[in-house]
Amino acid sequence: MAAHPVSPLAPKSYPDLPPVAGVRFATAEAGIKYKNRTDVLLMAFDEGTVAAGVLTRSQCSSAAVDWCRTNLPGGLARGLVVNSGNANAFTGIKGKESVRKTAEIAAAALGCSTAEIFLASTGVIGEPLDAGKFAGVLDDCATRLVDTPWIEPARAIMTTDTFPKLSGAVLEIDGIEVRINGIAKGSGMIAPDMATMLSFVVTDMPIAADVLQTLLARHTRTSFNAITVDSDTSTSDTLLAFATGKAAIDPILSLDDPRAEIFGEALSDVLFELAIHVVRDGEGATKQVSVHVEGAVSDESAFRIAKSIADSPLVKTAIAGEDANWGRVVMAVGKAGEPADRDRLAIRFGDLLVARDGERAPGYDEAATSAYMKGEDLELTVSLGLGEGRATVYTCDLTHGYITINGDYRS
Amino acid sequence: MAAHPVSPLAPKSYPDLPPVAGVRFATAEAGIKYKNRTDVLLMAFDEGTVAAGVLTRSQCSSAAVDWCRTNLPGGLARGLVVNSGNANAFTGIKGKESVRKTAEIAAAALGCSTAEIFLASTGVIGEPLDAGKFAGVLDDCATRLVDTPWIEPARAIMTTDTFPKLSGAVLEIDGIEVRINGIAKGSGMIAPDMATMLSFVVTDMPIAADVLQTLLARHTRTSFNAITVDSDTSTSDTLLAFATGKAAIDPILSLDDPRAEIFGEALSDVLFELAIHVVRDGEGATKQVSVHVEGAVSDESAFRIAKSIADSPLVKTAIAGEDANWGRVVMAVGKAGEPADRDRLAIRFGDLLVARDGERAPGYDEAATSAYMKGEDLELTVSLGLGEGRATVYTCDLTHGYITINGDYRS
Repeated sequence: MAAHPVSPLAPKSYPDLPPVAGVRFATAEAGIKYKNRTDVLLMAFDEGTVAAGVLTRSQCSSAAVDWCRTNLPGGLARGLVVNSGNANAFTGIKGKESVRKTAEIAAAALGCSTAEIFLASTGVIGEPLDAGKFAGVLDDCATRLVDTPWIEPARAIMTTDTFPKLSGAVLEIDGIEVRINGIAKGSGMIAPDMATMLSFVVTDMPIAADVLQTLLARHTRTSFNAITVDSDTSTSDTLLAFATGKAAIDPILSLDDPRAEIFGEALSDVLFELAIHVVRDGEGATKQVSVHVEGAVSDESAFRIAKSIADSPLVKTAIAGEDANWGRVVMAVGKAGEPADRDRLAIRFGDLLVARDGERAPGYDEAATSAYMKGEDLELTVSLGLGEGRATVYTCDLTHGYITINGDYRS
Repeated sequence: MAAHPVSPLAPKSYPDLPPVAGVRFATAEAGIKYKNRTDVLLMAFDEGTVAAGVLTRSQCSSAAVDWCRTNLPGGLARGLVVNSGNANAFTGIKGKESVRKTAEIAAAALGCSTAEIFLASTGVIGEPLDAGKFAGVLDDCATRLVDTPWIEPARAIMTTDTFPKLSGAVLEIDGIEVRINGIAKGSGMIAPDMATMLSFVVTDMPIAADVLQTLLARHTRTSFNAITVDSDTSTSDTLLAFATGKAAIDPILSLDDPRAEIFGEALSDVLFELAIHVVRDGEGATKQVSVHVEGAVSDESAFRIAKSIADSPLVKTAIAGEDANWGRVVMAVGKAGEPADRDRLAIRFGDLLVARDGERAPGYDEAATSAYMKGEDLELTVSLGLGEGRATVYTCDLTHGYITINGDYRS
């Protein structure tokens, strides 16, 4: 869908991610919905690869999400199939059968069990997905697996995304280089939990599946679960991590291993960068906003207030209008239902104090504030003055572009 | 602010409400923000008038809301002052002083105690409101009080509203005519609780304050608290009811009095019509949508699911695009966090079944559905198939008009 102009917040260039030992992939044009672009990704993992995942909490999750939820406890992965253009969600019994057949085709192509195949679909909800489309396609993909370039899988999973999303980290553990590569897609229907809506991370780190799972869940909190484009949560949100164990170091078998934290930090960096890419490709976005809340009674309370601000249509339209409308910020604090004292509130845009002690700050500088609001990357900080709780939620503005993408169409 | 075109959903005419004995009013141009229009309303009640109210649950409520909250337990009212153009919210200690001074000026003009004065302000948040502006204005208003026409107070309290909102009921109790008149304003920053944002209802019914309070709160649930324009909750939302007791019948002193239910139903009709007017004047609205949820595990669960659908930007933009996008409805059901079984869901637009048993309905008629979606008044029904819980939430679509009103400005 190159129909929409590329986000003005798109990165100027894309990282040239290195191969990750034990991971190969191929993409294909299956014509599921789009023409003249890839829409299927097959990723193959060497034997011994472990898997972890965080899935949507939607009560109406898609058939592919249900499939992953069933396979995750096994902890082993040999293949991943992703298609864009059709989410295979809300397709009833047909959806379940389509997922099972797709897994069977992929398992046959890769020579593994269906329990080791993970699936994700993104696109239109409610249209049955014909698994027959994957038959020849996946067989063909399996014959031409490569380990680079990573921009290809990032492109194949796009829907309304206007740019591919990649991030990688290389760290040295015990003198050995360990790699983490990640891709993501997502632009609308983005809110915790999860906000991805799809992201796949691979590493050659030898690590136990349960340790990987714990680290993945922990660092999702401050990355994919700390972003919102439009407060709408997808039925298909899926974040999967695969560790091939090919790096020549001792495996991390426990969270007590000091290398778990080092690896976790690098994983966190990758997840965070991918999540920010999603916000910066938010439908119609022209500005990225980091909403910081501090001085709340707890971190959870701070998060809920930050989310309330970041989800507020009135705050987001004001930011689109380059207006430091802190009155709307107060409104969004007030509606969060969390402890807040109107007369202790302080609000800053960037370093500029606009409100303090429940009223406009004495030295409020309208010209400086207006100049700040013209920027592309904005920081909004609310200090509650009640406690030590803090959290940050990342969002974008709400513009005519969002309405155009989501309202001016006939599907 | 006649800057915005009148809502296409505006009523074709306005009711010519009759006088309510014991209630008089005057409006004035105080120039608080707007030019060439009335922006102040003084309403005067005869001695013996009782008051009831439902106020915003925002943690950052305005100074005027705090004032009403303090006076409501007294249960008596002699005056109401409403201004538009400045909400006097988030104005710190200055806001509190401004409210006290305004009440003093009104009490002096009407010859009553400040404890019998109720106040409401609507408009910009964060600008101090100079109570001095009210001094001559309220004195003057007090000299020219009238009992009609009711469109004047309805006009004086408008902000981004594109039409005045009035509703009335006349009922006969014990052979005597009893009147209920109501006005409201609200267009954006509209969501439970409360969604008004301002509404005032008067009646000549003799009724105890606590009975009036109970009836008001009960019928707010299915009127003002069942509407949403943009999920944003105002810091100033105020619904006040005043009963002068002038009708020549015995007073209703208890909820056990069978007349309480008869009166309550009429009150409910007035509140409901006013609330619907607010939705139909939703910023940028081109369609009104009634979102019905049935078959939920409880009424509360049904309400939360209906609210999730009615608040969803993706559902609202699809409706603006005249697309029966039930996939987005499924998404909104799923994100509500309430019990739902994807494979039992049924979704109807009007009488047209579009989805059933978790997939597209077999007889789905795209042409008929498209024709239905072109209407101005839409009914969306979600059947969960789990229990007997049901609820309805009323909303409007999300269009470029909303972005224009809220984003294309410099305040």
